[in-house]
Amino acid sequence: MKIYDYGIAPNPRRVRIFLHEKGIEAEYEKIDIRKREGRTEAFLEKNPLGGIPVLELDDGTCISESVAICRYFEALHPEPNLFGAAPGEIAEIDMWLRRIEMYLMSPAGLVWIHGNELTAHLLEQNPGTAEFGRARTYYFYDILNKALEGKEFLASDRYSIVESVALPTLDFITTLVGVPYKAEHTNIKTWHEMMSARESANA
Amino acid sequence: MKIYDYGIAPNPRRVRIFLHEKGIEAEYEKIDIRKREGRTEAFLEKNPLGGIPVLELDDGTCISESVAICRYFEALHPEPNLFGAAPGEIAEIDMWLRRIEMYLMSPAGLVWIHGNELTAHLLEQNPGTAEFGRARTYYFYDILNKALEGKEFLASDRYSIVESVALPTLDFITTLVGVPYKAEHTNIKTWHEMMSARESANA
Repeated sequence: MKIYDYGIAPNPRRVRIFLHEKGIEAEYEKIDIRKREGRTEAFLEKNPLGGIPVLELDDGTCISESVAICRYFEALHPEPNLFGAAPGEIAEIDMWLRRIEMYLMSPAGLVWIHGNELTAHLLEQNPGTAEFGRARTYYFYDILNKALEGKEFLASDRYSIVESVALPTLDFITTLVGVPYKAEHTNIKTWHEMMSARESANA
Repeated sequence: MKIYDYGIAPNPRRVRIFLHEKGIEAEYEKIDIRKREGRTEAFLEKNPLGGIPVLELDDGTCISESVAICRYFEALHPEPNLFGAAPGEIAEIDMWLRRIEMYLMSPAGLVWIHGNELTAHLLEQNPGTAEFGRARTYYFYDILNKALEGKEFLASDRYSIVESVALPTLDFITTLVGVPYKAEHTNIKTWHEMMSARESANA
């Protein structure tokens, strides 16, 4: 099996961090998304949506979507458990995964697509769409900051997949997208520094 | 335990369909989202994002996000299995869940918020944002239709949580949001009719 990957992109980095925390080594093949290599006919056979990462199994089956790939490895190698053990923990982890995707990555994605000069050649940008995404991102930052009050980890009392997903997402949004959290979001800052200090952050 | 619910909304319906397929009965309490009951201080304690459904456990723990709630019940009552058994099936189901959320519900949500007269009182709508969401929704309809070619179910060779999630999503988008799939999307139409004919569709 191998994973189609691209160093700087946030979603492949989620998988690399997760696998590092699990102690799993994988084979990677670079897909240069800046050269639109995710949009070739051959690659669209692997993922019709053209995104990375994609996990290709030895029988040719392809799994895309970063969290689905992580779930595959968790099912194959259950320990250390990063998706939750008891029903309540499993649900809490999934709840936070979805909040990060739907209330952080999705609105920030609108800013990336409609408000960033790096993507301006791809479509006719609508500044109002970017502004809507920016406001939604800040709305979630407030909720995230409050949820982290007195907590070391977001979804559980231990490290979980949520951290593997949220760290690259946050790094992407605060740097490339250009929507940093505010100075008043002190709990996000502490969490961000703790997660960035782990060895897996360099994966 | 009980589930905060609202009949017509798509996300609570996902949970009701899922529980019907699992053969699980639950207690429901109505939150009238048209009267903004999801935005009261008391309800925001249960879900700071104000959305429904929310599952409240007997110890007061609240789980929001429809799929996370379903995962809780799957962990508690593993059979009939609807989230996948073997690693490959688990991953394929999660991949499709995320595609439905990120490439169908999210863009259609932009049309709902920025292009529907029923939501016009909530914010200053940006027609360009609605147009972007509409184009993205049609982009995904094409991919969905192709993926369903020769298949009865989306993620597996049997009914899974993906169907429980996709049916209310599709019903919401084709009716209330007003972005129906096209006549050429014959595979979506067949799938839609099959899923609508199941007893669980009335849950």
